[in-house]
Amino acid sequence: MADPSSTHQTAPQRVSAEDLAARQRDISVSAFFLRNRHLLGFDTPAKALVTAVKEAVDNAIDACEDAGILPEIAVRITRRGRIYTVAVTDNGPGILEPQIGRIFGKLLYGSRFHKLSQSRGQQGMGIAAAGMYGQLTTGEPVHILSRVESEAKATALYVAIDTEKNRPDVHRKKHVEWDHPHGTRVEIMLEGHLQGGQHSVETYLRQTAIANPHVTIRYEGLEGRIRDYPRTVESLPPVPKEIKPHPHGIELGRLIQMLNATRSRTLMQFLINDFSSVGKKTAAQIIKAAGKRLSDRSYPKHTAHAQAVALHRAMDETRIPAPRTDCIVPIGEPQLLKGLRAEVSADFYTVTTRPAAIHRGNPFQVEVAIAYGHPGETPAGAVAGGDGVSTHENERIDLLRLRDEPAMLLRFANRVPLLYQQSSCAITKAVIQTNWRSYGLRQPKGVLPIGPMAILVHLASVWVPYTSESKEAIEPSPEITKEIVLGLQHCGRELSHYLARKTRQRHEIERRAYIETYLPHIAAALQDILSLSDEDRDKTLARLDAVLRAGRRKQGDAS
Amino acid sequence: MADPSSTHQTAPQRVSAEDLAARQRDISVSAFFLRNRHLLGFDTPAKALVTAVKEAVDNAIDACEDAGILPEIAVRITRRGRIYTVAVTDNGPGILEPQIGRIFGKLLYGSRFHKLSQSRGQQGMGIAAAGMYGQLTTGEPVHILSRVESEAKATALYVAIDTEKNRPDVHRKKHVEWDHPHGTRVEIMLEGHLQGGQHSVETYLRQTAIANPHVTIRYEGLEGRIRDYPRTVESLPPVPKEIKPHPHGIELGRLIQMLNATRSRTLMQFLINDFSSVGKKTAAQIIKAAGKRLSDRSYPKHTAHAQAVALHRAMDETRIPAPRTDCIVPIGEPQLLKGLRAEVSADFYTVTTRPAAIHRGNPFQVEVAIAYGHPGETPAGAVAGGDGVSTHENERIDLLRLRDEPAMLLRFANRVPLLYQQSSCAITKAVIQTNWRSYGLRQPKGVLPIGPMAILVHLASVWVPYTSESKEAIEPSPEITKEIVLGLQHCGRELSHYLARKTRQRHEIERRAYIETYLPHIAAALQDILSLSDEDRDKTLARLDAVLRAGRRKQGDAS
Repeated sequence: MADPSSTHQTAPQRVSAEDLAARQRDISVSAFFLRNRHLLGFDTPAKALVTAVKEAVDNAIDACEDAGILPEIAVRITRRGRIYTVAVTDNGPGILEPQIGRIFGKLLYGSRFHKLSQSRGQQGMGIAAAGMYGQLTTGEPVHILSRVESEAKATALYVAIDTEKNRPDVHRKKHVEWDHPHGTRVEIMLEGHLQGGQHSVETYLRQTAIANPHVTIRYEGLEGRIRDYPRTVESLPPVPKEIKPHPHGIELGRLIQMLNATRSRTLMQFLINDFSSVGKKTAAQIIKAAGKRLSDRSYPKHTAHAQAVALHRAMDETRIPAPRTDCIVPIGEPQLLKGLRAEVSADFYTVTTRPAAIHRGNPFQVEVAIAYGHPGETPAGAVAGGDGVSTHENERIDLLRLRDEPAMLLRFANRVPLLYQQSSCAITKAVIQTNWRSYGLRQPKGVLPIGPMAILVHLASVWVPYTSESKEAIEPSPEITKEIVLGLQHCGRELSHYLARKTRQRHEIERRAYIETYLPHIAAALQDILSLSDEDRDKTLARLDAVLRAGRRKQGDAS
Repeated sequence: MADPSSTHQTAPQRVSAEDLAARQRDISVSAFFLRNRHLLGFDTPAKALVTAVKEAVDNAIDACEDAGILPEIAVRITRRGRIYTVAVTDNGPGILEPQIGRIFGKLLYGSRFHKLSQSRGQQGMGIAAAGMYGQLTTGEPVHILSRVESEAKATALYVAIDTEKNRPDVHRKKHVEWDHPHGTRVEIMLEGHLQGGQHSVETYLRQTAIANPHVTIRYEGLEGRIRDYPRTVESLPPVPKEIKPHPHGIELGRLIQMLNATRSRTLMQFLINDFSSVGKKTAAQIIKAAGKRLSDRSYPKHTAHAQAVALHRAMDETRIPAPRTDCIVPIGEPQLLKGLRAEVSADFYTVTTRPAAIHRGNPFQVEVAIAYGHPGETPAGAVAGGDGVSTHENERIDLLRLRDEPAMLLRFANRVPLLYQQSSCAITKAVIQTNWRSYGLRQPKGVLPIGPMAILVHLASVWVPYTSESKEAIEPSPEITKEIVLGLQHCGRELSHYLARKTRQRHEIERRAYIETYLPHIAAALQDILSLSDEDRDKTLARLDAVLRAGRRKQGDAS
């Protein structure tokens, strides 16, 4: 290396280590995400509006389910110029007054981060981020109304976010009458843009209804537009159980942290209480394998670094049963079919649930469903008729218009629809990887299959690895992608049986039409050639008809 | 809606608002990113190793440049099983002892977030995140050695991160002799995997050298591998100037925050001091247009909400000069060519710098360079020879092997190479959008152009909108994508002239070869037919040759 002193002469403007130090400062997490708000899904006014609705609705359903209440959600959107007001009301348990500010006015605050348990929210950011975006674009705080069942009145207040300190600024608090016995209403003013199509509020709500058939949603949009999504299932899904980490998924640093933080007083207790799938016998095996003078009764907090390293290796090398998977609650095949049928009009439906699997020590489970074709239409190969766009049948999605387009993809993670970043998502990659041509569909290289089809994939997990804080796409790890592909293949095979049957039926109809058209002409010709009486002609015709039909039926069965 | 009381009966397990409240907790930003470490680029051991080197090198170069020192960076990687040690040493100004812990042991701490100024770092997360990943996977803290020029000895210490509190835990501090007069060495142990190819440490360093021809880097890899990237430019780039926000890019909420935080004592002063492009005259216009009893001498902190709304509208509607762009420091055309030539061996180079433009109120500037073909080879259409893989010439990248493959894309933001997430990046989208066929290249629909070509794009900005905290791709906003396309089109036209000239030259060579081959035969035939003497034959031959060459030259010029 050159002598550093010589390089000083080229310095255009010398700044000392002291000057640099004086500039170093803490960055508040709110200030960080305010500037990088696209990371939270608030890049454009149109997307911000959908994201705000999504965060409020996800929170509302989570709260209702936690409290064992069948969710009833009302979403209302009003507008004044570019400023929209989103109001989401739920019949959940309500929020205690001292918590309201922190929940809506502080990023990284929540109940779901510190446990491994399947839920919509996992970060403690979404709803506060929506409020922060509203405040940024309109200067207005979030308005909350919440009533806990034990209270006679509801609490009404406004929450602003002090972004420099990432803390709530609560004001204008009062107690008011509210005709709901319990529940919460959150009202956010924000700069927005209400658009239709694939990335709309209504698409988000429709897909939410599909994956959550136990939820009732009423949507009131602009210009008096009302859309109801009534529940089709009258019971709540089972409550997902909390789970401890599995010893095989744990990093050394995390183990050291857990040893320091545990309340267990012996190493044996620590292994049994703080991990899943570890009983007394397994714990004893691990401790023995670790060596390093560790014993069942070692005090966890006093574990030396070398001991922790040995313990970590022993945990990795000991055979331990796979994690329990009852912590995962899939939507369920009948429920998924009900949801899909209610919103997508098709000829054929199939659904499959994969067994639970493991990713980074966390259990997850994949569900796949496919809807194909259009009622009353013959599928693939039929003659196109009309423009295929339809608004009948309570506005169900009509797949016919997708005849020559890529399949519609419905992506879900823990029952939440994923509307954006389709191309980066594990689900999309799995669909593209699957060979749909072997199931009788068209599929150009590297893209989705073509046809009048909706493909639904749901990933349920105690921890979903999203590609960003906006939770729009699932990180395509090999373990997850593989499970999705297996589910798609199962449904693909079912679909291919259906398509083959349909093709046979169509051929049969065509043959019958031929026979009916040409047989009388053949009969007349035979009568001429063989000089048959009318009676003989009819007999011959009947025999011929029978023989041909039989032959064709045989042929048809064999194909 | 149904009577909510009836739904209680279906509750599988009722939890009250009080229970829910008891579970709510703060989530530390470190704990958040520890779990979501893929957001910071630490998803796999291979990627984690590259990301750790990148964060350390980016910090080192930033520190040197701030202090006006020509950077000399040494990167050393050693290994013990799956555990790698990354050591990065710089000749920067060093770090004051009290700052060391916070810089390496705390996420969201830094000097660059709170100002708008072009730099590699902008989040205050990268290097601490690398340390956190190391600690997670090995249990080992980061080891720092740093010496400030004014101190006789260097400070050596270890920094661990208390992830539950997001704060550094400094230990084993001592003062030691160090043969560097000033500088910093950071040493991180982490679970890694050293891989070659497109996503390797060496690719990252090579691309860093291309975009930073003023930096000298020495790399010591495994098994005695050493690679030097000496500087090719002997002076530092100009110091980027800090800039204030432009009034046209500011949101209402941000304006309100600035009004509350300003040190200016009058509205006039506030507009002039806290914004760019606002002089006395523009400020007076804004205040007048705002109305609402606002005057030049209004006290900013006392601005009412309605007044702020009016002021915001007035700022938006007043004509204000575009932001200054001297805050942006592009690499520069000669410097970029030098860097590119040193690392990529090609036949043809072209480079262009776009004028500065604006995105969300922040100035940015795009540079594009293209390298095409291989020295000594004729380009497109030439006969392929060998496998095209070459390691000669100091291991410069040889484009020949890309003859039938997509062009090599070199993406940079503020002089930092972007190695991952190519498909989500604004640069990739811009290259795909550009119509390369009109410049004489092959390009299948929706993909990169095909050919022996490297396309380099650099975005310099006071604030780069990355698609994630790992800073791997640029958010494809329309303003940015458009500028990149314009730069690509400029270079594309230059390339197409070169290719046309090459094609003409090749045709000329082919024609000459034809003439030389066939003319003697024609001459012999003519001699036979016309019974010419040998002398006459040679004369005719000479004339014929002259005429043919002249005609062809004319034809060639016209094409």
